[in-house]
Amino acid sequence: MPSPPDVEIMTIGDELLYGQVVDTNSAFMGQELAKIGLRVRQISSVSDRADEIVAALDQARQRAQVVLITGGLGPTKDDLTKHVLARYFGSELVMHEPTLAHVTEFFRKFNRPMLDVNRQQALVPAACEVLFNAVGTAPGMWFEDQGTVFVSMPGVPFEMKKLMLDHVLPRLQSRFELAPIEHVVVMTVGLGESFLAEKIADWENALPANVKLAYLPTLGSVRLRLTGTQDGRPDLRPRMLALLPALREHIGDYIFAEEETSLEAAIGRLLLDKTLTLGTAESCTGGLVAQRITSVAGASAYFLGGVVAYSNGLKTQLLGVREETLAAHGAVSEAAVREMAEGTRARLGVAVAVATSGIAGPGGGTPTKPVGTMWLACATPGGTVTRQINFDRGRDLNVSYTAQSTLALLWQQLRAL
Amino acid sequence: MPSPPDVEIMTIGDELLYGQVVDTNSAFMGQELAKIGLRVRQISSVSDRADEIVAALDQARQRAQVVLITGGLGPTKDDLTKHVLARYFGSELVMHEPTLAHVTEFFRKFNRPMLDVNRQQALVPAACEVLFNAVGTAPGMWFEDQGTVFVSMPGVPFEMKKLMLDHVLPRLQSRFELAPIEHVVVMTVGLGESFLAEKIADWENALPANVKLAYLPTLGSVRLRLTGTQDGRPDLRPRMLALLPALREHIGDYIFAEEETSLEAAIGRLLLDKTLTLGTAESCTGGLVAQRITSVAGASAYFLGGVVAYSNGLKTQLLGVREETLAAHGAVSEAAVREMAEGTRARLGVAVAVATSGIAGPGGGTPTKPVGTMWLACATPGGTVTRQINFDRGRDLNVSYTAQSTLALLWQQLRAL
Repeated sequence: MPSPPDVEIMTIGDELLYGQVVDTNSAFMGQELAKIGLRVRQISSVSDRADEIVAALDQARQRAQVVLITGGLGPTKDDLTKHVLARYFGSELVMHEPTLAHVTEFFRKFNRPMLDVNRQQALVPAACEVLFNAVGTAPGMWFEDQGTVFVSMPGVPFEMKKLMLDHVLPRLQSRFELAPIEHVVVMTVGLGESFLAEKIADWENALPANVKLAYLPTLGSVRLRLTGTQDGRPDLRPRMLALLPALREHIGDYIFAEEETSLEAAIGRLLLDKTLTLGTAESCTGGLVAQRITSVAGASAYFLGGVVAYSNGLKTQLLGVREETLAAHGAVSEAAVREMAEGTRARLGVAVAVATSGIAGPGGGTPTKPVGTMWLACATPGGTVTRQINFDRGRDLNVSYTAQSTLALLWQQLRAL
Repeated sequence: MPSPPDVEIMTIGDELLYGQVVDTNSAFMGQELAKIGLRVRQISSVSDRADEIVAALDQARQRAQVVLITGGLGPTKDDLTKHVLARYFGSELVMHEPTLAHVTEFFRKFNRPMLDVNRQQALVPAACEVLFNAVGTAPGMWFEDQGTVFVSMPGVPFEMKKLMLDHVLPRLQSRFELAPIEHVVVMTVGLGESFLAEKIADWENALPANVKLAYLPTLGSVRLRLTGTQDGRPDLRPRMLALLPALREHIGDYIFAEEETSLEAAIGRLLLDKTLTLGTAESCTGGLVAQRITSVAGASAYFLGGVVAYSNGLKTQLLGVREETLAAHGAVSEAAVREMAEGTRARLGVAVAVATSGIAGPGGGTPTKPVGTMWLACATPGGTVTRQINFDRGRDLNVSYTAQSTLALLWQQLRAL
């Protein structure tokens, strides 16, 4: 079997270099390419300047046999990719009639006037094969030049995704013979990277040579990723899965899933399994806990709703937090967050409730309750538990970490029920 | 004045190439570098393999005089950057005592046992200048080699940010003579990219040669960015700002800010200016509208709270939506969303309320109300307006677009009050 081609991802746009847009396309492409056994050798983000695009194309083809390009296909003046590619491959721009018909229909359907710039979206270099863009007006373009494949796609994420899934990945699979890379992912929460590493050091040292472990920490969670490459023996994936029981012996209490999934999805599964309903009461997290819970498709089967009680008045009115509690301890207190969670169970008629109250900052801190002081509670039929955390890395991260900690507490309590 | 050095950003980590982590560091760095007049020539994401890191370093120094590197400095086995840099610059790893003292204190403060891998964080190549990492254990490292500056920083975003702001940017400013690039950003909502371009075509064509316009569309919003480079005449920024009145004549109704800010921040400013309070009632958006509103520091001055009424029972119980309305029209209807918004004004005692109800998908669609059918309402002292949107690009985008449209509706209504 010939070794699979390396892939280079090239994302084009000054907005990427100025940092005004975060490149999320590359991550999606990297994930999907890995699934079909293609390794991304490098991701290069370059400007909208023609000479720099050409220099990057020249370098990419030296590293990789497949170059996937996104961006610079919009209707406006700063979008040069199509023109640069036409020149790079010594090819004229020609009107692609099926694309023109599609673009025309696109505008008719949305009842919008079609502009000349939109019409120009149907111009493509004669040298390319057109990949139909069902959800946008700029088509994908597939070039082959001296054994290297170049594919140009729009930078709009949902258009790129649809082109990748419908056209680019199937074509790459049929164009090359691929030995799949296998990934096994173990999701953990509640223990930091170094402590996990210490606990599983012996297990890690005993991994087979063709299996590599990576620690992927995110705020309040660490994903462990095993990457296995083919070693000429069959059943790579089952052999990798057979490594997990020993891992569980070391860190089983912290594993919430043995597949790529979110903590909120694992929580949803536990709630469904135990036929429990959930409600939320949020102050400092401002709706983020509810938003994460409802990001799971089908959440309406167990999530009845929640209250974002930002003001003290609403904590009392909607959740039944006692005014005396607020007066004696303040809203950021164990007593208040406990009453919020228990009030949510009672008022919203849910089996399980979580609550948050804290000082997200940058203002609002006091000597005894500095910014980053957060209280969490989880109330279940088995009782109420509370946690205090202190975490101050700026408002956004404080809120994110508090929401993550709240979901971690909820998961632990649900698991124990 | 010598021309400023180009910068290359190198992000290191297999997790970036596999797409398991989105690179947000580069965007932050690009923004901050632009502010001090440094242009990012290319962003390169490479693997954890030593030979590929070295190849990327060799290429980066041909394109740029400053190479900013993030990632691969963690305590675990897959983190190679420090070792590769030591070899690349022909330098030994030595124990950096101030860093060791800092790491030791770091663990003592958080009351955690210090492991040998943590101790090794204080080893640095003898050739570098150490940049103190106040918020983590892996220090930054500054190298100069044959006129090129190389800086290595941790990949953890808040550690990288603090190192950039405290050390790297000030050092770059003092090391090079910089002619600042000027950016003027105009934030718009409510009109798509092509239509904006059509409306401002004459204005755009008349821009001075040293001022470049870019369209930066995100879901439901387009940012216009003017980039001005020095042309030897004084007052570049005032001259750029003087271009805006003519722009306002064309698209003033769609401009919510003339600076880099969010729609929710612009809404907050309007609420403060008009001394109005706000509440939210969310079904399909599941808390995202409240979360965006509360992402603005100081939101507690105008945001009292909200309800995530996912179940019909809570729509009735907490917001006073009539059971007859739900029976006759369903929860996803103009009548229901109107009662949600008006109920929020009445029950939560807020001046202004927004409400959302829709079918986020993937399940729950019907022939008359397919997935992506969304109703929005905004109730103010001046009355209630509703909007229907149809948008189906998957659950996450459906929810994001609905939240964005709700904020757009709220902004329009507040502006008119």
